[in-house]
Amino acid sequence: LDPSLTDRQVWSASAVVRRITSETELIATYLAPLTAGLAGARGLRDDAATLSIPADMEVVVTTDPVREGVHFFSQDKAADIAWKALSVNVSDLAAKGATPFAYTMALGFPEAPCHDWMSGFASGLADAQLAFGCHLAGGDTDRVAGPLSIAITAFGLQPKGSFVPRHGAEVGDHVFVSGTIGDAALGLALHQDGAGFGQAELDTAAVAELIDRYLRPKARAGLAAVIRDHARAALDVSDGLVRDLGRLIGAHCALDISTADIPLSAAAQAVTERPDVWPTLLTGGGDYEILAAVAPEKRAAFTARAAAAGIAVSELGRLRNGAGELAITHPGGAPLAFERTGFDHFG
Amino acid sequence: LDPSLTDRQVWSASAVVRRITSETELIATYLAPLTAGLAGARGLRDDAATLSIPADMEVVVTTDPVREGVHFFSQDKAADIAWKALSVNVSDLAAKGATPFAYTMALGFPEAPCHDWMSGFASGLADAQLAFGCHLAGGDTDRVAGPLSIAITAFGLQPKGSFVPRHGAEVGDHVFVSGTIGDAALGLALHQDGAGFGQAELDTAAVAELIDRYLRPKARAGLAAVIRDHARAALDVSDGLVRDLGRLIGAHCALDISTADIPLSAAAQAVTERPDVWPTLLTGGGDYEILAAVAPEKRAAFTARAAAAGIAVSELGRLRNGAGELAITHPGGAPLAFERTGFDHFG
Repeated sequence: LDPSLTDRQVWSASAVVRRITSETELIATYLAPLTAGLAGARGLRDDAATLSIPADMEVVVTTDPVREGVHFFSQDKAADIAWKALSVNVSDLAAKGATPFAYTMALGFPEAPCHDWMSGFASGLADAQLAFGCHLAGGDTDRVAGPLSIAITAFGLQPKGSFVPRHGAEVGDHVFVSGTIGDAALGLALHQDGAGFGQAELDTAAVAELIDRYLRPKARAGLAAVIRDHARAALDVSDGLVRDLGRLIGAHCALDISTADIPLSAAAQAVTERPDVWPTLLTGGGDYEILAAVAPEKRAAFTARAAAAGIAVSELGRLRNGAGELAITHPGGAPLAFERTGFDHFG
Repeated sequence: LDPSLTDRQVWSASAVVRRITSETELIATYLAPLTAGLAGARGLRDDAATLSIPADMEVVVTTDPVREGVHFFSQDKAADIAWKALSVNVSDLAAKGATPFAYTMALGFPEAPCHDWMSGFASGLADAQLAFGCHLAGGDTDRVAGPLSIAITAFGLQPKGSFVPRHGAEVGDHVFVSGTIGDAALGLALHQDGAGFGQAELDTAAVAELIDRYLRPKARAGLAAVIRDHARAALDVSDGLVRDLGRLIGAHCALDISTADIPLSAAAQAVTERPDVWPTLLTGGGDYEILAAVAPEKRAAFTARAAAAGIAVSELGRLRNGAGELAITHPGGAPLAFERTGFDHFG
């Protein structure tokens, strides 16, 4: 193989690659091994899987497909695409307080993939399964005109009644966010146009780190139990901090925060003087951090448990009485205005 | 609106239609009402749903997307597309002995749909929900270049340990099939080329009935309990009788059947004299009937329970010792040969 070919180019270059020639082969060789450890998956040799749920638990289910041209690029590495496909679903589960344990996956391929591509894809899933503690339970593979799509439906477990809703935050609650914000949006800009953005301020390692945040978002599975035990309301930051904060605040509270309190990576910090970078950081999306509203009496336990889980959390501010207002202000400055608060597929 | 426009043409004719302008509106207006009756769906106002599972039951999960150009045509009615999308998943559950109760749905739209199209789509889902006894639990909506896709993941319940596998049929078992075979394949041919196939033998009502079998496959949800109580192995007939019978027979049995024992509708019976129609009937796919292997001591109970459920079942033959051979023979004739035994997306 020409080593200059990217994974996807290899996938398309039918003259030089070994292409997978049957669904049965694809499933048996690359997907069935991902079910090891989940007996109910039946090694993908049946038409459905069984999930046995302990009597005191309930299932939390979410579905969040990723699609070429929307959530990833055709030239992205197969392993990265696979990681992202599972991670974005695990992120939703963790934000509801659910511990991931299984997922199904529907693949839509524009053409039969080659062995190298599927091997990379399966290894990305295996990495993500190990990181997040879940297993493939079942799925489907189609060949269809149009972009590659990977539709995962993920399952988590939590004690009955412990689901943490998106709505329900109250006046006085402390608003926390995990990790750092804006890295994925910067990473996307660098991934699309490496020479045109931020290269003056960033060294090669910083650029690679930001692009990695975009390509391999790290779902906060380790926060699931902390969220369910100590948060009143929570959601993951997938559509940009501004839009997702608006969802957490709801219609009966308001929040004033300072940009000084928004956690930024060193790499993001290095570009904050660039014009127009703040809207990118705060509305760009793809962070897959968790936003949580925590009651005052639970604040100490929440931060202690998060620290014990090894996940940084930062307090953005405290909810006050209001009607959904969100003001984000530079220290000593006026509130920022956003032309676009986040992502709407039809907006 | 021009009454000659089909649903899909209306959907695309942006000059004359009211197009949906936000994901929020699409969800609130058309999808949230489909969750009524399933509290854990939270009216689609959160990022995940909860499913509470009775202590003695387990969840059966399957995922089977339908895609424009593969499983349906762009000009098909929105209500029919929706029905099929849910029905093909319910069919998998019923064949495993699971009673459907919920599903999630990931929609990939090439462009924002118009209100008329979404209204038809939601009404098709509502009809199918009522017919099959399940509710929308959650989902996702994307806009993506390429054909419309609807990826449903469906959930059924059954007593722990009662899953009916695809494999495990034994020598001496009676092989049954529900309903009639081949109608959907004939319906597809008529739907694609109404003037060119079978019009000589079929009246308008018969043509409409066959096309309906293709457009609106009737999943046998009513057989779920019968299958789990009385079948040793089962699967649904989605990829054509020949291929799916091969799966049921497995590697350690064989089956000889007569075409006289294959249940056909009156409409299909009327075209059996046409050349080359038998391969269409037996390998065309889309039947969504159920194949079951029933132990001799359970045969009487199986047929009685199916009759009580109002679903016709026909015995195709009895499994004998073998290595997976399937022979289908016209009365007094030689075994039929099939160039193509069914559908493989990469074959």
